[in-house]
Amino acid sequence: MAGRPGSWGGLVLRAGQAVCAGLCVGIMGSSLGFASYTAFCYLLASMALQSLWSLGLACLDGYALKAKKDLTSPILVSLFLVGDWVTAILSFAASCSAGGVVILFRRDVLFCRRYPQLPCGRYELATAFAFLAWAQSATSAIIMFWLLASS
Amino acid sequence: MAGRPGSWGGLVLRAGQAVCAGLCVGIMGSSLGFASYTAFCYLLASMALQSLWSLGLACLDGYALKAKKDLTSPILVSLFLVGDWVTAILSFAASCSAGGVVILFRRDVLFCRRYPQLPCGRYELATAFAFLAWAQSATSAIIMFWLLASS
Repeated sequence: MAGRPGSWGGLVLRAGQAVCAGLCVGIMGSSLGFASYTAFCYLLASMALQSLWSLGLACLDGYALKAKKDLTSPILVSLFLVGDWVTAILSFAASCSAGGVVILFRRDVLFCRRYPQLPCGRYELATAFAFLAWAQSATSAIIMFWLLASS
Repeated sequence: MAGRPGSWGGLVLRAGQAVCAGLCVGIMGSSLGFASYTAFCYLLASMALQSLWSLGLACLDGYALKAKKDLTSPILVSLFLVGDWVTAILSFAASCSAGGVVILFRRDVLFCRRYPQLPCGRYELATAFAFLAWAQSATSAIIMFWLLASS
């Protein structure tokens, strides 16, 4: 199955998650005044957790490919499954709440027009990367579920 | 299995979803000025869909209990599964974005203190009911998945 742990597909998926989550952390963390907004702080924390988790599993995939190990034992897949579901749900909640706040700033209370020093573009970019990271994390979570169910 | 379609547990779960989602729609829809905020409009739309779906399935459960019909055929469970997952994901996204905006109003930009005419308490109550509706909807979705996987 494409994207299973210890395969090239899995490595690419994990690397994509780590890169998107890392970009989100970098862009949001370097934005002016993000710390005044709870939703953006939560997004940063959740994406930091996501990038650490994905980076760890990407390293594990790389090691398994190099050493030709098999990572699809039920106990390992269960572990990945729980971790993937927890991080995917946290990422989705963080992305949605940050998205709600970004849309509020841009369209409803017009903070972006009223306060030009507010880096709305960066907030939007970080939220977009968070949604990308979530989409890949959800793909991984579904693949893990499938592997466990079919084993 | 408790909570399967056509059982008393299923009927209680569906009625709980419909009541929580309906309360959310009622409280949010009667709040002053909710229509100025995209996140609250989306919450209203998503909860209206959730309450219609849950009410329909509650009626079906009641009919099945009265007429002693079996609703656990794979084709019916697949249909309920898809509907439950779609409504649960929409409800979760709506609840999280409304929650992000409510926390922003209350703690970050202090709109609740600055504009006392803003019914923050009602927004919070509606969001809390939305999370309750989502929790019950997610329970239903997991039960459907289990039923389909074990059939």
